[in-house]
Amino acid sequence: MSRIAYVNGRYVPHKQAAVHIEDRGYQFADGVYEVCAVWNGHIIDEGPHLDRLERSLRELRIGMPMSRQALSLVMREVIHRNAVDTGIIYVQMTRGVAPRDHPFPAIPETQVVMTSRRIRPQPAKFGEDGVKALTLPDIRWERCDIKSVSLLPNVLAKQAAREAGAYEAWLVDDDGLVTEGSSTNAWIVTRDAKLVTRSASHAILNGITRLAVIELARGEGLQLEERPFSVAEAKGAREAFITSTTSFVLPVTQIDDQVIANGKPGSLTLKLRQRYMAHMGDQTRAEAAESA
Amino acid sequence: MSRIAYVNGRYVPHKQAAVHIEDRGYQFADGVYEVCAVWNGHIIDEGPHLDRLERSLRELRIGMPMSRQALSLVMREVIHRNAVDTGIIYVQMTRGVAPRDHPFPAIPETQVVMTSRRIRPQPAKFGEDGVKALTLPDIRWERCDIKSVSLLPNVLAKQAAREAGAYEAWLVDDDGLVTEGSSTNAWIVTRDAKLVTRSASHAILNGITRLAVIELARGEGLQLEERPFSVAEAKGAREAFITSTTSFVLPVTQIDDQVIANGKPGSLTLKLRQRYMAHMGDQTRAEAAESA
Repeated sequence: MSRIAYVNGRYVPHKQAAVHIEDRGYQFADGVYEVCAVWNGHIIDEGPHLDRLERSLRELRIGMPMSRQALSLVMREVIHRNAVDTGIIYVQMTRGVAPRDHPFPAIPETQVVMTSRRIRPQPAKFGEDGVKALTLPDIRWERCDIKSVSLLPNVLAKQAAREAGAYEAWLVDDDGLVTEGSSTNAWIVTRDAKLVTRSASHAILNGITRLAVIELARGEGLQLEERPFSVAEAKGAREAFITSTTSFVLPVTQIDDQVIANGKPGSLTLKLRQRYMAHMGDQTRAEAAESA
Repeated sequence: MSRIAYVNGRYVPHKQAAVHIEDRGYQFADGVYEVCAVWNGHIIDEGPHLDRLERSLRELRIGMPMSRQALSLVMREVIHRNAVDTGIIYVQMTRGVAPRDHPFPAIPETQVVMTSRRIRPQPAKFGEDGVKALTLPDIRWERCDIKSVSLLPNVLAKQAAREAGAYEAWLVDDDGLVTEGSSTNAWIVTRDAKLVTRSASHAILNGITRLAVIELARGEGLQLEERPFSVAEAKGAREAFITSTTSFVLPVTQIDDQVIANGKPGSLTLKLRQRYMAHMGDQTRAEAAESA
């Protein structure tokens, strides 16, 4: 089956899916995006993802190109046309096509692109053994709360991590405090069993999985602190993990050369990982029941 | 006459010029660019622009897709096909097309896009009256020396400037020191007639016009200091101006609400502006003589 992409109102074969060279996404990184997990054919946490998309657009004063309901329908259609059961849906919106000039175009027309594809299940050993994180200076701009396509520093950090044999880069601000991963949020469990993750600010993207895990942790009665933590605190932590739409909850068992605790995924991490998988399952069952 | 763009080896009508939606320039701002002035059919400071393009590519480890000689020929062809006498040529290179994933693709293939267009001469009153600059916090990433398409903060700054009735935004670092404009370099002339512009570092783009003006100033025997200057120093300066490929040398006669000196373009600024226009004229004559 050939893949289909949505480009500005048309469903086109993926290979031919193109945007104009003067799309401001291409020339200025003047656009935003969302990636949602698709799980048993359902879009996980669709509401919060669309809330965040609308917030990103508002912050950049890019117009929402269609109603939220229409957007949701198109997302479903793209998933359906690609027969995606478990995978992702990617939505990108940019400020329009206009002769190249920095200021906003006089008559901006938001461009919309969507793709959906299956993704292979995460290797089981990621959950069983955990992954490694590499710390790197956070050199990004000061509005990381906006989910823009201005991702070059994230790309460079992720590549550096992979070349160092790490799964993710943990970015560190000028005060030695971890902001977040290059495409994930960063968490630790302190020796006295407190769950810690940086509070939402302009310095990090407020992950949808981060928000879901906060809710799950509260439901479990866990002690939670939203505050920055240092690289030293992380290296001395009892547990560490990352969260994201595609990584879910993933144990981190090594930071740079430092093995975390006994080098095995922590019990709290594994509990939250299990709860998050259940959270995804619950949503798909609830949605199936609704449409039944 | 219809405009023609160059896209990955093909000359195509501008309206149909497109890149794939998974071009990393579009999804990750994973690319670089150059804009050169075209003056009487000649590319101004082509050598330094291509040097900088190669440097940007090297810093990001994006492969140069063709020989420099071939690149230069294609640039000329694009200018020729668009019958551009006075205007610009825009060259963008990205890390390739690949399924969306942060790390570098396994087999990256640099994508190349070029456009060329005429531009109207700068309004004479810009040179006669000068323009206004608005100071704004510099919230960009820490590798502004790389001429990447990761330009969203520059777009936002330029838009804010225009909405405030200013021509350019001057970006200010955490220490209150001016880094550069959103698409220009910033200069002042001190009360004791010293020319000051920030030294090249990761904090600014080392402008080709900046480099040319430094050379011209040296040729004129002017005192030049490459160092940061504060907003306060700029507001109290004798003269202020900006340089860029498309602005050339442009007097700044107001910064925020502060009129600079007597509110007229300064004599040193006007001298450098005139010398820079002569520098462009010299190049076109030299090239014409060579090809005669």
